[in-house]
Amino acid sequence: MKKKIWNINFWAIGIVLFSLAACTGNPQIAEEKADPLPSWNQGATKDAILAFVQDVSDEQSQNFVPVVDRIAVFDNDGNLWSEQPAYFQLFYAIDQVKEMAPEHPEWLTTQPFQSILEDDMKTLASFGEHGILEIVMATHAGITTEEFEREVSEWLATARHPRFNKPYTDLVYQPMLELLAYLHANDFKNFIVSGAGIDFMRVWVEDVYGIPRDQVVGSSIKTEFVMEDGKAEIRRLGELEFIDDKEGKPLGINRFIGRRPIFCSGNSDGDLQMMQYTDTGDGPGFMLYLHHTDAEREWAYDRESHVGRLDKGLDEAAEKGWAVIDMKNDWKVVYPFELEGSSN
Amino acid sequence: MKKKIWNINFWAIGIVLFSLAACTGNPQIAEEKADPLPSWNQGATKDAILAFVQDVSDEQSQNFVPVVDRIAVFDNDGNLWSEQPAYFQLFYAIDQVKEMAPEHPEWLTTQPFQSILEDDMKTLASFGEHGILEIVMATHAGITTEEFEREVSEWLATARHPRFNKPYTDLVYQPMLELLAYLHANDFKNFIVSGAGIDFMRVWVEDVYGIPRDQVVGSSIKTEFVMEDGKAEIRRLGELEFIDDKEGKPLGINRFIGRRPIFCSGNSDGDLQMMQYTDTGDGPGFMLYLHHTDAEREWAYDRESHVGRLDKGLDEAAEKGWAVIDMKNDWKVVYPFELEGSSN
Repeated sequence: MKKKIWNINFWAIGIVLFSLAACTGNPQIAEEKADPLPSWNQGATKDAILAFVQDVSDEQSQNFVPVVDRIAVFDNDGNLWSEQPAYFQLFYAIDQVKEMAPEHPEWLTTQPFQSILEDDMKTLASFGEHGILEIVMATHAGITTEEFEREVSEWLATARHPRFNKPYTDLVYQPMLELLAYLHANDFKNFIVSGAGIDFMRVWVEDVYGIPRDQVVGSSIKTEFVMEDGKAEIRRLGELEFIDDKEGKPLGINRFIGRRPIFCSGNSDGDLQMMQYTDTGDGPGFMLYLHHTDAEREWAYDRESHVGRLDKGLDEAAEKGWAVIDMKNDWKVVYPFELEGSSN
Repeated sequence: MKKKIWNINFWAIGIVLFSLAACTGNPQIAEEKADPLPSWNQGATKDAILAFVQDVSDEQSQNFVPVVDRIAVFDNDGNLWSEQPAYFQLFYAIDQVKEMAPEHPEWLTTQPFQSILEDDMKTLASFGEHGILEIVMATHAGITTEEFEREVSEWLATARHPRFNKPYTDLVYQPMLELLAYLHANDFKNFIVSGAGIDFMRVWVEDVYGIPRDQVVGSSIKTEFVMEDGKAEIRRLGELEFIDDKEGKPLGINRFIGRRPIFCSGNSDGDLQMMQYTDTGDGPGFMLYLHHTDAEREWAYDRESHVGRLDKGLDEAAEKGWAVIDMKNDWKVVYPFELEGSSN
């Protein structure tokens, strides 16, 4: 199984190695081939990651960590894939509102639905978190888990990102795919710990990241067990169960994983508490903070953004010496499709 | 890691093989060696398990199931280890009440604590589920997750089962250890799905069953994130969060695993809904029901027991043709210590 689900990463890494081989033709190829993070520029951040993983994996090191304790947690939005111009899950909800609108004539005159049907994103934004929640509840509940999975799959297959005109799952970060593969190869168990919907993520994380469904922690709505025509089903209810954000993240980690992580990767204030939880464990810990500094290849935003505040995390990263990724300077490549060259 | 955590099972299987080799000395040894379930007697139940696993693992079979979908779920109490004369977790709670009593003089005159301090199990039982819950809350909450883990570990190291005078973790079922190992070897992912406390189980399941902590679903109490002297901690609160029993089991499976199982093993009405959930999936499914019929080596109980009712599950198993283990006749060995021979 492992071989299969990691195909995509090795394939992309292979392309990088092939490009390097073709361009340089020098005797350093052997050394380059051994680089597990080829899309990362040489620098303090890359060096720190490599040094930490080698250190905790080395039985001779005083910082050696047994395999069972090698837990790595990753935020998703803005950390493993992009989150601009809005959380991708919100685009799903918006498209669902449009699709479901014929059965809901009342939405034409009911906010926040009306603003979606009128493509008035400004008004939609004015309803804030509460508005988003109402849209998510209306579009994510009332169906079985298996129906929901089908709907998300169908959407992913056809929806396109407004800026790049590509499937949303193309907008994952190539350097992070390499980092996931590198940790996995060193017997880390990678978990996604995200404020997004757990069931929304599970539909695609296996194919895209090689992370099994049961290694996803996320926000959830309540469910009920029902027998329908002799078939047992889980029905999704229009009520929040758990918000996996801020303090919720370490609580979700404890509930789902049952162990304090030693590697934590995030990019916003929503990740601060799981960073602190990782940082203050008894053994070694590595905290990695992604700073969006690349307006050209991705987006540049700092301190404050419509996807949430980022200032406490950045300040605490500086104060405590956590590793900060400067996307523009630390990453050779942002998206896997940049590697495809002529096919674009 | 896998090698390490499965050691105990292979060790026990090795002992069986060694005993067989020593006793029989006949040319069937080669064949016996290949038996992945040596502690199971030949019969319909063992045959059905072997046939199912071979069928879904065979790429040429029309019932082939991709590795990613090979999810197996196991109830714990009375299914992977014994549950008599009471749930083992209750013995922990009772011992904790006695240990904590000096700090709680009011317990001398407050039920249900008074009955425990007076060793009056009959009166304790009269407080039913509500009484148990009160005891569990008093003994499992108010501390951090790491403190709780230490306390359970210390208890397991010294507590002894009243009938067998052995550590509780010795009372696991040897045939089920073999079944877990057999499924694991065939790329199944094994999960425990139990009404017991998730954090109580996680302390020992890795060592005893070779099942990672994050593959445990169980009942839980609420928690909060706190910073204490600069260290981030999870504090356990005296309020129920989730009861992983009956309808709760398929809901817990959906929340933690995110996939319908294809193999389900249980022994009481509390497991009925996850049996139904497994049974009514679109692909193949195997339902295994353990019937306690062995008063000599373990316990015999049927239909009704102080650990909960068992009748609906047994009836539905018969009606739907689910595999039923007759412990007395299907199992050569119940506990691993029976294999140790002279050391007892």
